Amino acid sequence: MSSLDILARDPGSRGRAGLLTTAHGKVRTPAFVPLATKATVKGLLSHEVAELGYDMVLGNTFHLFLDPGDERIAGFGGLHDFMGWQQPIITDSGGFQVFSMGHGTVASEIKGTSAQGTNRLGKIYAIEERGVRFRSYLDGSEKFLGPEESMRIQANLGSDIALVFDECTPFHVERGYTEASTERTHRWLERCLAWHGEHGDPAQLIYGISQGGVYEDLRKQSTEVIAASGTPGIAIGGSLGAEKAQMYEVVDWATSVLGGEHETKPRHLLGIGEIDDLVRGVELGIDTFDCAMPTRLGRHGVALVCDPEKRWRVDLTAGRFKDDHAPIMEGCPCPACALGLSRGYIRYLAHARELTGMRLLTLHNLAFVQRVMADLRAAILAGTLPETARHLRAGGAPGTTP
Amino acid sequence: MSSLDILARDPGSRGRAGLLTTAHGKVRTPAFVPLATKATVKGLLSHEVAELGYDMVLGNTFHLFLDPGDERIAGFGGLHDFMGWQQPIITDSGGFQVFSMGHGTVASEIKGTSAQGTNRLGKIYAIEERGVRFRSYLDGSEKFLGPEESMRIQANLGSDIALVFDECTPFHVERGYTEASTERTHRWLERCLAWHGEHGDPAQLIYGISQGGVYEDLRKQSTEVIAASGTPGIAIGGSLGAEKAQMYEVVDWATSVLGGEHETKPRHLLGIGEIDDLVRGVELGIDTFDCAMPTRLGRHGVALVCDPEKRWRVDLTAGRFKDDHAPIMEGCPCPACALGLSRGYIRYLAHARELTGMRLLTLHNLAFVQRVMADLRAAILAGTLPETARHLRAGGAPGTTP
Repeated sequence: MSSLDILARDPGSRGRAGLLTTAHGKVRTPAFVPLATKATVKGLLSHEVAELGYDMVLGNTFHLFLDPGDERIAGFGGLHDFMGWQQPIITDSGGFQVFSMGHGTVASEIKGTSAQGTNRLGKIYAIEERGVRFRSYLDGSEKFLGPEESMRIQANLGSDIALVFDECTPFHVERGYTEASTERTHRWLERCLAWHGEHGDPAQLIYGISQGGVYEDLRKQSTEVIAASGTPGIAIGGSLGAEKAQMYEVVDWATSVLGGEHETKPRHLLGIGEIDDLVRGVELGIDTFDCAMPTRLGRHGVALVCDPEKRWRVDLTAGRFKDDHAPIMEGCPCPACALGLSRGYIRYLAHARELTGMRLLTLHNLAFVQRVMADLRAAILAGTLPETARHLRAGGAPGTTP
Repeated sequence: MSSLDILARDPGSRGRAGLLTTAHGKVRTPAFVPLATKATVKGLLSHEVAELGYDMVLGNTFHLFLDPGDERIAGFGGLHDFMGWQQPIITDSGGFQVFSMGHGTVASEIKGTSAQGTNRLGKIYAIEERGVRFRSYLDGSEKFLGPEESMRIQANLGSDIALVFDECTPFHVERGYTEASTERTHRWLERCLAWHGEHGDPAQLIYGISQGGVYEDLRKQSTEVIAASGTPGIAIGGSLGAEKAQMYEVVDWATSVLGGEHETKPRHLLGIGEIDDLVRGVELGIDTFDCAMPTRLGRHGVALVCDPEKRWRVDLTAGRFKDDHAPIMEGCPCPACALGLSRGYIRYLAHARELTGMRLLTLHNLAFVQRVMADLRAAILAGTLPETARHLRAGGAPGTTP
């Protein structure tokens, strides 16, 4: 039985709205999943994240493995109890972070960011069939992550959805490397499923990860292999291309082979969250998305606003906002804008790196993305996805869609 | 007419409980005043500070003058509107910060901290009768602060209580320097009052600042000069000694000369806020206190708890808390402890420098201090200050006093 109830479909695309059932409750899909990398959505309390309308957060296997340690978290009853969040949690496999250390600029290529949370102390010693030996960025000690270790860590974390351990292949490598790497990821998938079958909690949903880079045959083949493996869900990862158009093409290839018997398997798109990407992703049949963008931008003074020309972003640290009495975004119903604070004040706080400013913009940005997702879901249920997608793409305010 | 209504007195000490009336409402005294140095209590929203039970916050003239600028804040309708806090605000004069740059270790000597918010870029060019020329720590530009400038800035900020511009004399200087400096502070007081009389808002209460260092005659004389000047309130500043016993003696000298016609002038003790100091300060007749301690400690992983041996502090970043399932403080009713999060989790967040950890400990620490102040006030009103003071000094939990 599938964990995803599809409640409605957009007749003109692969878009669908549903309810994803997990051990800690349901996720209304399509949904964005905020990052709780280190057991917290940075600056927010768990109940605030729920009050924004989010059903699920994403915890980071790599970071939590290194500190405080997955066994320690298990001692606290798992990640839900540890961080005081009793709704669904998805955990990544750690593959993306561990390979980011070795592939250098992978992270920045794929996600438009610098390497996440790692520093010069962290580096890969060896990538082997068994897994990856690397140096901890925290204390320089040698660590090992492979398929079984990743599954064991995610079992200790007790996440509702676990991702299999994969190699996130970088953009710049040639087809030969991508092919070999994808095949290894498939072998690792089998080992993840074997470990979980023997030791795991049957209530934890395992998502395979489609690799194959930007090569149509490899990408489709990988997605088919994942789907045929029997994992209850499918994540799309790895190199999604250098530009948005190519990324959409790659996602299209992946979801194109997920019809028929695989139709009701939930699909997660890894690390993608810009507003136009969310709209297109939903049309391409994605159910859940995660991305550091809304929270990270908020911590750096950038607010999400209705401006497609500027990728829906405004950098409030700019000097021109010093005397701006307007709110972050006119008419915005978010908890930050509701306080009636001015852009001038937020600009000052953000420029001075004040915690309160980071918190206010994190709230605003997550509220913005949540309204976009709620609009898309409501539109699919109402049969009006094309109008809503057009409205949002044109810079229409979320929450006011026709 | 005085701004302070004294509602009750402790018969065995100078302690009194009252209501301090300002242009933005009343402050229940004795009271602790959290720092909103850069127009925010770091990490908290204004309504959260009010919900903790605080009636007043302290804004920083020096920092707000440099950025975003007092005229800019005036353009936003003043500091209350700028930061969204409609209750009373007290602003310091900028004297402490500007002289800290020149006196080197003054701040650490007096307040037990390193220089606040300044760096190598900031330095004093000259201390003159007119005021102080210095280099901005933000951009290296030359700035000037003197009595008139400080009053003008505080008028622009629109604070309910403004402090006169004073030289905060360091601990290590000899009597001769302290005497000369104190006399200059008195001349500056006259200029502050003259500026305020001509240009200021009569609703803004001006507090003179008692200097005189650790010399009994100078301290008493300075306090008498301030009281005789007609300022509606009196702050006790400057060097209060190297140890707590000496600090109590200095405060005792100051409040000993504030009887009779000066009795109903509100008294503020600058930069003091440890739990035993608050208890002793209240007994010595102090009405309001400000201190960076509760909020700064919270940002560095330190929680206030009922442990006089350890100065009411526990450093939760210590390794021994890694597996601690207990809350920050057993039985604590604060908003952070009410979430049911463990010391192990808070330890992890604090150690990882996560914003959420800073926020939770800031909440806990400010709630702790507020309960101490509420207990002291209730005790004076009930005629039981000695019992309450004994209970708190012995490490009794605030909020459970007899």
